[in-house]
Amino acid sequence: MASTSSSTGTPCGACKFLRRKCTPDCVFAPYFCSEQGPEKFAAIHKVFGASNVSKLLLRIPAHHRSEPVVTIAYEAQARIQDPIHGCVAHILTLQQQVESLQAQLMQAKAQLAPNAIASPTVDLENQWQYLTHFN
Amino acid sequence: MASTSSSTGTPCGACKFLRRKCTPDCVFAPYFCSEQGPEKFAAIHKVFGASNVSKLLLRIPAHHRSEPVVTIAYEAQARIQDPIHGCVAHILTLQQQVESLQAQLMQAKAQLAPNAIASPTVDLENQWQYLTHFN
Repeated sequence: MASTSSSTGTPCGACKFLRRKCTPDCVFAPYFCSEQGPEKFAAIHKVFGASNVSKLLLRIPAHHRSEPVVTIAYEAQARIQDPIHGCVAHILTLQQQVESLQAQLMQAKAQLAPNAIASPTVDLENQWQYLTHFN
Repeated sequence: MASTSSSTGTPCGACKFLRRKCTPDCVFAPYFCSEQGPEKFAAIHKVFGASNVSKLLLRIPAHHRSEPVVTIAYEAQARIQDPIHGCVAHILTLQQQVESLQAQLMQAKAQLAPNAIASPTVDLENQWQYLTHFN
C-alpha cells in the first residue's frame, strides 16, 4: 500500500479528492497515494462517506488499519458495480457454490461407500480382524 | 418488511432515529417501521450515513429498493460486529469452505476413478463393446 507524506506538501489521494489540506496526522494518508488514491477514494466516499470511514479507522489501532481500508474499498467498489446487492452478491454466489459442492461430495461419498463394502480387500481385512480377535 | 405511513403523523424508524420530520415521500419509510426501525437504521447510519443510503436508494427504482435495504443493513451490521473485515470475513470463510470442499471432492473423485477402471462390470462392458464392434 502506498504511503504519502503530507509533510512534503503533496496531499494524499483522499485529501486530493476532497480538495482539503492534508495534515501530518491525516488518517487516510498511509493508504491513499496522491496518484491512484483519488480514484480509489472516490468510491469509498460515495458509498460510505469520508467522515464515517475516518471515524471507523480512528477507532482501530493504527497498525491494524490497512485491512479495514482494503475491505471497505472492496465493499464500496462492489456496491458501485451492483447497487442492489453490493458484495452480498459474492456471498450468495459462494453460498450456492458451497451447497453445490456439498451435494457433489455427498454423491461421490455415496458412490464410494458401496464400493468400499463390496471391496474384497476390505472384506478380507474385516474377516482377518474377526478371526484374530477370537483366536 | 414493515411499512410506515408518514401521513399518520408517526415518523418512520429512520426519521425517528434522525429526529427529523417524516415526509410522505420519505425514501426510508417503507423499510423502517417506527418500532424496530430506529435500531436497525442506527447501524446503517453509523456505517454508511443516512445521506449516502438515501442517494443510493433514490437511484434505484422504488420497486427494487427492498433488496438493497436488506444487503446494506447486513453489511452495516457485519461492519459493526467486525470493524476490520466487515462482511468480507464471511466471504473469506466461504472461500476457504469452497477450497476445502473442492479438495475433498477431487480426493473422492480420485478414489472413484481407479475403482471404475478396475470394476469388472466396466471391464466386461468394454470387452463387450470391443467384441460387438468387430463382429
